[in-house]
Amino acid sequence: MINVAIVGGTGYTGGELLRLLANHSEAKVELVTSRKLVGKPLSSVHPHIKGLYSQNFESPSAKEIADRCDIVFTAVPHGTAMDWVPDLLNAGTRVIDLSADYRLSIEVFEKTYGIKHKAPKEAVFGLTELHPEVASAKLVGNPGCYPTGATLAVAPLAKAGIVDRVIFDSKSGISGAGAEPTETSHYPNMAENVIPYRLTTHRHVPEIKQELTRLSPGIRINFTPHVVPSVRGILTTAHVIINKEAIDRIRGRTELAEIYSNFYKNAHFIRMSDSMPKLSSVRGSNFCDIYFEFENGDDRLVVISAIDNLVKGASGQAIQNMNLMAGLDERTGLWLPGMAP
Amino acid sequence: MINVAIVGGTGYTGGELLRLLANHSEAKVELVTSRKLVGKPLSSVHPHIKGLYSQNFESPSAKEIADRCDIVFTAVPHGTAMDWVPDLLNAGTRVIDLSADYRLSIEVFEKTYGIKHKAPKEAVFGLTELHPEVASAKLVGNPGCYPTGATLAVAPLAKAGIVDRVIFDSKSGISGAGAEPTETSHYPNMAENVIPYRLTTHRHVPEIKQELTRLSPGIRINFTPHVVPSVRGILTTAHVIINKEAIDRIRGRTELAEIYSNFYKNAHFIRMSDSMPKLSSVRGSNFCDIYFEFENGDDRLVVISAIDNLVKGASGQAIQNMNLMAGLDERTGLWLPGMAP
Amino acid sequence: MINVAIVGGTGYTGGELLRLLANHSEAKVELVTSRKLVGKPLSSVHPHIKGLYSQNFESPSAKEIADRCDIVFTAVPHGTAMDWVPDLLNAGTRVIDLSADYRLSIEVFEKTYGIKHKAPKEAVFGLTELHPEVASAKLVGNPGCYPTGATLAVAPLAKAGIVDRVIFDSKSGISGAGAEPTETSHYPNMAENVIPYRLTTHRHVPEIKQELTRLSPGIRINFTPHVVPSVRGILTTAHVIINKEAIDRIRGRTELAEIYSNFYKNAHFIRMSDSMPKLSSVRGSNFCDIYFEFENGDDRLVVISAIDNLVKGASGQAIQNMNLMAGLDERTGLWLPGMAP
Amino acid sequence: MINVAIVGGTGYTGGELLRLLANHSEAKVELVTSRKLVGKPLSSVHPHIKGLYSQNFESPSAKEIADRCDIVFTAVPHGTAMDWVPDLLNAGTRVIDLSADYRLSIEVFEKTYGIKHKAPKEAVFGLTELHPEVASAKLVGNPGCYPTGATLAVAPLAKAGIVDRVIFDSKSGISGAGAEPTETSHYPNMAENVIPYRLTTHRHVPEIKQELTRLSPGIRINFTPHVVPSVRGILTTAHVIINKEAIDRIRGRTELAEIYSNFYKNAHFIRMSDSMPKLSSVRGSNFCDIYFEFENGDDRLVVISAIDNLVKGASGQAIQNMNLMAGLDERTGLWLPGMAP
Repeated sequence: MINVAIVGGTGYTGGELLRLLANHSEAKVELVTSRKLVGKPLSSVHPHIKGLYSQNFESPSAKEIADRCDIVFTAVPHGTAMDWVPDLLNAGTRVIDLSADYRLSIEVFEKTYGIKHKAPKEAVFGLTELHPEVASAKLVGNPGCYPTGATLAVAPLAKAGIVDRVIFDSKSGISGAGAEPTETSHYPNMAENVIPYRLTTHRHVPEIKQELTRLSPGIRINFTPHVVPSVRGILTTAHVIINKEAIDRIRGRTELAEIYSNFYKNAHFIRMSDSMPKLSSVRGSNFCDIYFEFENGDDRLVVISAIDNLVKGASGQAIQNMNLMAGLDERTGLWLPGMAP
Repeated sequence: MINVAIVGGTGYTGGELLRLLANHSEAKVELVTSRKLVGKPLSSVHPHIKGLYSQNFESPSAKEIADRCDIVFTAVPHGTAMDWVPDLLNAGTRVIDLSADYRLSIEVFEKTYGIKHKAPKEAVFGLTELHPEVASAKLVGNPGCYPTGATLAVAPLAKAGIVDRVIFDSKSGISGAGAEPTETSHYPNMAENVIPYRLTTHRHVPEIKQELTRLSPGIRINFTPHVVPSVRGILTTAHVIINKEAIDRIRGRTELAEIYSNFYKNAHFIRMSDSMPKLSSVRGSNFCDIYFEFENGDDRLVVISAIDNLVKGASGQAIQNMNLMAGLDERTGLWLPGMAP
Repeated sequence: MINVAIVGGTGYTGGELLRLLANHSEAKVELVTSRKLVGKPLSSVHPHIKGLYSQNFESPSAKEIADRCDIVFTAVPHGTAMDWVPDLLNAGTRVIDLSADYRLSIEVFEKTYGIKHKAPKEAVFGLTELHPEVASAKLVGNPGCYPTGATLAVAPLAKAGIVDRVIFDSKSGISGAGAEPTETSHYPNMAENVIPYRLTTHRHVPEIKQELTRLSPGIRINFTPHVVPSVRGILTTAHVIINKEAIDRIRGRTELAEIYSNFYKNAHFIRMSDSMPKLSSVRGSNFCDIYFEFENGDDRLVVISAIDNLVKGASGQAIQNMNLMAGLDERTGLWLPGMAP
Repeated sequence: MINVAIVGGTGYTGGELLRLLANHSEAKVELVTSRKLVGKPLSSVHPHIKGLYSQNFESPSAKEIADRCDIVFTAVPHGTAMDWVPDLLNAGTRVIDLSADYRLSIEVFEKTYGIKHKAPKEAVFGLTELHPEVASAKLVGNPGCYPTGATLAVAPLAKAGIVDRVIFDSKSGISGAGAEPTETSHYPNMAENVIPYRLTTHRHVPEIKQELTRLSPGIRINFTPHVVPSVRGILTTAHVIINKEAIDRIRGRTELAEIYSNFYKNAHFIRMSDSMPKLSSVRGSNFCDIYFEFENGDDRLVVISAIDNLVKGASGQAIQNMNLMAGLDERTGLWLPGMAP
């Protein structure tokens, strides 16, 4: 049995780790930290897990966490994870960080987040399907939600060297913005609305560029996010401009389907779809459903991907990484259908 | 032309007064106050009115307001209206107060709101259909949203003396809670949910009791509110227990229909319905749609009313009161259909 | 391993049985029937389970089903289940019927549904918490969604003999109306709306009366359902009128809490709550969360219950019954947290 | 007073014409047709207008319509409008057709809709801001909803000759799909979802190409529509690729702002915005709100437009066209704020 800790367990990703780990056959939540809520039951913040966990929030040292746990999920804000990670690693645990602190090179991180990195460490980017080396990592930087949906949609095409440019237009449920009420999350503002934001400057862009450029140097990437009146889910519309040389070759659905199926042949959580993906098909699950369609007589391929931002886009993927790190089948505890309707 | 002022024009009721008055043929918004936003355009807070109003927020004295305006809408929080009303009245304007400060007797107000009333004044309860005397009022206490929907649903039955008890179960859109983000209004909390609150102690209960007891001394009233995933609208389900003597007499639909049509014969905004009222039929409008059904073999009559909480439940009713105070047809500027779908 | 069949597996309750059974350690879906879709993969109708089930829909005889399966869920419309049940029982399987065909006495069924019952059989009403005798039943009539939420909310009080009357005001997600598009389920009709229907005549009333009258002869029951803009969940507001003799005795929270905790002491899926139940806390789970509040100075107790209509209100409860019938812990395969947010 | 007829008045665009014309000072709805509902009150289909219209549906001949009316709105399905238009024009009325029958050249229409055009007529494309010649038109082909939002967003840039290519990614409320329940509009399918469809082949593409190519021959256009869980509104995200020569010149916000303000200097319903447009700001109104942002160091300009699909995208624009045809100010009867929240 793997003993796990959740550092910073009061937010949505913490709650989702608890939900998913409640039925994991090989892992057990040993402790959950919160400085503010020490001694309060986990269910005081997460009433949905009442009855399944009897623990209270704790506030142990990194040393004590390492003594009691094999793997630690850090689910604290970016800029705060770097306060925890070095001590946890030094004390001998392995860490899966759900913040942005260990996803990018130092230079790109500091430029993107506008803060100095206090504790650079070698880390593996935890987009599991693209980074099997997480299996032996001490530290995993778990990807952002948008980069997960966007990168998975296009990675096989990028690897095949047939893409000039991708314009990603993503639509996310509002849970991606967290558990704290804001102007945007105020029901009368969000309902019956679609809210584009950071049209050209979202902080997840460098993650997408990092991953796709690695597969296809020189690929051009643009990204615009929106929130829609939905709690969970990210639907990414990738407008892919195919390069001239490749167009005639890959125009047929069969060739494209082969590119995807070869690339993802061992990826249990990628489901190629013959019909339009639905957010309900992935809701609550770790699946990423993908569909594509070529524009007749043009160079545009439209790829659609659907994930649950809190599962494949955060806590589920973190557990998938944990499974690999622990030598388990990636599906362990995660082989759950979507919740439809 | 009536010159009107809106004191406290940054909230939902202020924005709705602006929306509705933009096309009022006999009234003109002369000024809108906000201490915090003096000099900023009204559209900085209310982008929906951009192009229709070019004014900026102001912060004049009560005296100046009275000099420039004939009627003042006070759309400030309860407890604050009483700071404005005496000066406005003394300076010679008439006031329609959308807060709770002038709806109840002093005793009931102080007990309900837990604060001392600083400036009691004679006021008419502005449920227009029940209080034609608003026409000559200096000060109108515009009713709460729940009391409007609840009282209008049952007033004719109460007047007819056939009701023992009413259990009101109301479902409101979340805009009733105002423009400030809260835990409850946080989209992931409100979406896909129904939130009962203050199950037995909502502050609107005394208004309902005041009005129905006036019509039927001894009537028993219970009230439980809920918010539902909707921006606007209140759907009230009134479980009406008919008294024993009346049951056989009023069991037929015809007799009940007559009770309603007689009571509301001059009320343009009450629409008796042969089918289930829809919130979309009253959305954005000043209508109150009412429907009822008797339970076969029992003493329960179920009455359903539908209003837009921000219109008939607040700003629309305030303008209806203004129309009467100015000697106009109550429909002036308000004779708008609902916005469906 | 229990081999189960789902007869009529294309609707929401069928899909939900598949979702929940995908991770049941002691049961395995052996076959799913659909006359129309024979040979098509289950995922063609239920894309959320793609990858977890590789089967196709089949159309075997009752005899063949009985040969291959230990327990059969009939998830067909009322009036159709009675065509299947006798043959399945004769062939030696046990049946959990999710339709209305075996919930009521013949007389009440025929009066309520307006059709003649073709195949009366002895059945246990499958509200698991109230009917431990399902353990040895050959045939279980799985309760309706509204009766589950309503009865569980009030059963302990009824048993305690302190209730005169209950007026149930229930708010349901629209998935309760099934997978077929209708006027009511049309998004522009349902969004931003609350739809009361069958105000006094819903077909679930006799189930509620049957169960509560059994516990408290003479109790009076009224029920009015509404659909709200939510996919899943039933929030029931029970306006409970306490009888005169009991009022003073049970006014305190403690006494009421004891009544509930004693009644439900072995019921793992009932969670008594100190704060308002949320639909998200039970979403996707088999829990029923209950909260109550006494009205000061009056005889009304307000009880709130929250369930997922498709789980505790249908397929989850069916599996809970299956667990008992198979001698398993009732939690087997169902010990899942709610999905929040 | 202009007497108007609505041919085919039972759908959403018919209902919206009634809502908007209810307060038009210079126009009066003389008759509304429906073959199926002759003799039934308009409010039987449109309960939101109850009390404002007392008419019944009629089914007169084109000749009679022309005798009684000055202008006719045909709000029937495409393929049906062409059965009405020639007779109406011959009988001497002017026609504003809300179907697709008169928006495109015959060749493009027949190719796009796959049906033969029975009655080609000269018509003006009724995107009012781009076609002042509607003032003297006998027949106006009122644009589709998507083309209105897309074309208005980009027309000034196209006219300025600085655009290479535009990839439109549009998000629409589901009311655009009409009043008939479908799989897509079924609440459990649409809620908590985002549904892309006709990724590369939507029938509105030719309208967008027609208008933008007219302004900028050679411009490349791609378009992908989505429906989101919203009743009304279209939010269009235009990913505009600026041509190389123009990039440095127009990079500044000021130059772009001038391009827009010059192009739209007489267009009252276009509101250029300094902050992100909200669907609530245009809901129920005829406004189109536009915002843009240049991507630093790249050739992409992101333009956002927001309209109400049923107003500026259909019935409001039709009335705007009517106003011009009648020599009125385009704002007459349409100078309404959005309905926020």
